[in-house]
Amino acid sequence: MQRSSAIELLAVPGIPRIAKGDDLVALIGEGLARGGIVPRGGDVFVLTQKIVSKAEGRMVDLATVKPSAEAIELAGNVQKDPRLVELILSESVRVVRAGPGILIVEHRLGFVMASAGIDQSNVSGDDGTALLLPEDPDASARRIRDALIRSTAADVGVVINDSFGRAWRNGVTGVAIGVAGIPALVDLRGHADRAGRALKVTQVAAADEIASAASLLMGQAAEGLPVVLARGFPYERRAGAAAELVRPRAEDLFR
Amino acid sequence: MQRSSAIELLAVPGIPRIAKGDDLVALIGEGLARGGIVPRGGDVFVLTQKIVSKAEGRMVDLATVKPSAEAIELAGNVQKDPRLVELILSESVRVVRAGPGILIVEHRLGFVMASAGIDQSNVSGDDGTALLLPEDPDASARRIRDALIRSTAADVGVVINDSFGRAWRNGVTGVAIGVAGIPALVDLRGHADRAGRALKVTQVAAADEIASAASLLMGQAAEGLPVVLARGFPYERRAGAAAELVRPRAEDLFR
Repeated sequence: MQRSSAIELLAVPGIPRIAKGDDLVALIGEGLARGGIVPRGGDVFVLTQKIVSKAEGRMVDLATVKPSAEAIELAGNVQKDPRLVELILSESVRVVRAGPGILIVEHRLGFVMASAGIDQSNVSGDDGTALLLPEDPDASARRIRDALIRSTAADVGVVINDSFGRAWRNGVTGVAIGVAGIPALVDLRGHADRAGRALKVTQVAAADEIASAASLLMGQAAEGLPVVLARGFPYERRAGAAAELVRPRAEDLFR
Repeated sequence: MQRSSAIELLAVPGIPRIAKGDDLVALIGEGLARGGIVPRGGDVFVLTQKIVSKAEGRMVDLATVKPSAEAIELAGNVQKDPRLVELILSESVRVVRAGPGILIVEHRLGFVMASAGIDQSNVSGDDGTALLLPEDPDASARRIRDALIRSTAADVGVVINDSFGRAWRNGVTGVAIGVAGIPALVDLRGHADRAGRALKVTQVAAADEIASAASLLMGQAAEGLPVVLARGFPYERRAGAAAELVRPRAEDLFR
């Protein structure tokens, strides 16, 4: 297996606040020029879910949302705005856990996550706006990748990342919700260890690992570093999709 | 908040196969010299659980293990060696989920993980040897950190990482099981977003993110890259401990 001995993560400088319709790839190009960064084949661009959703216009004015009876009842249990709960339910296929302040759902994309990934912070000065995940983050990643390849002339990959909580462990970490041009899951079956025994750990969530690495650099407090270029992704590239990371419900012990 | 705009991950070259009693810090020093890498204050060394466990002599000869009746019964259900199941139970406080080929437990350290982190691959040519987690990985990280600070004269941090599966998502990712000299969990409460609203995502599992980043470089297939130096950790440093990452049972919705 091809394996580099270094990985470099570079924040693309000067990405401005994003609004609906903004051309992310053009803004990334300006940032790369500003930072003197020249992308190479094999580099991976990691973009936050937030800027992709905003560019795609996934903001919803809560004043326009009419909560259902189900949303109103659930909102009481979880102590959230019934209009927000209505949006969460409309983005989800089922509720996985509900408790005071907590609503963990299975998103229609298959991700098990808090509040269907709907973000009320940092969208605008108006508390009445919510930001949904991109409609189809793998498709978004593919579109952004195609445009980046055209504009940089380098065969790059793209990951759209978000911060998820986990079962059993405190704190959030970066995970991949959209992937293009790299494997999300790397299958090591058939590889042997030094003793010649087949490896038991057969699948590595490589796109989640790169999403976490970039998240460390992006931080949580600012929109200032929403794009990171990762150089040295060590696995063989292929089309890839974040959908690979969703464990089918039938194989899941925790739903 | 202090925030760098780049993170660099460098594999320390030429770390040999580790045996009980080996001086990891001396071997890292030789590798750094070989690679021309000069550690700086703030750098974080990430070491695999496997080399730390081996240096600490945490190998167990399965021929010496006498399985209890409980282990024999459970081994039938999960289709594992009863002696291995005995070791898993002896390292654990409870079984969280059991199924064919799967035994997820709460390790005595609080980590919810498959097979109590006990590894049968890559320990030796002998299938009859198992490798347990370090007795106290946070204490191991502190010892290694103290020795690295003495040998390098740089105020470095240390993370011991392992690969864990997750609920709901396919594939393993690197997580921190031992931490010294950096925060495992970074609390962002009190920080405001651009709109001046308090952030809702308040805790970032920074040590898990750096563990994942290093894991990407280490890969799974080889023991060849078990030590990675990470430069550019963006959060304020403090003593830290992986114990911060364990969600208390009472606050956990998935145990």
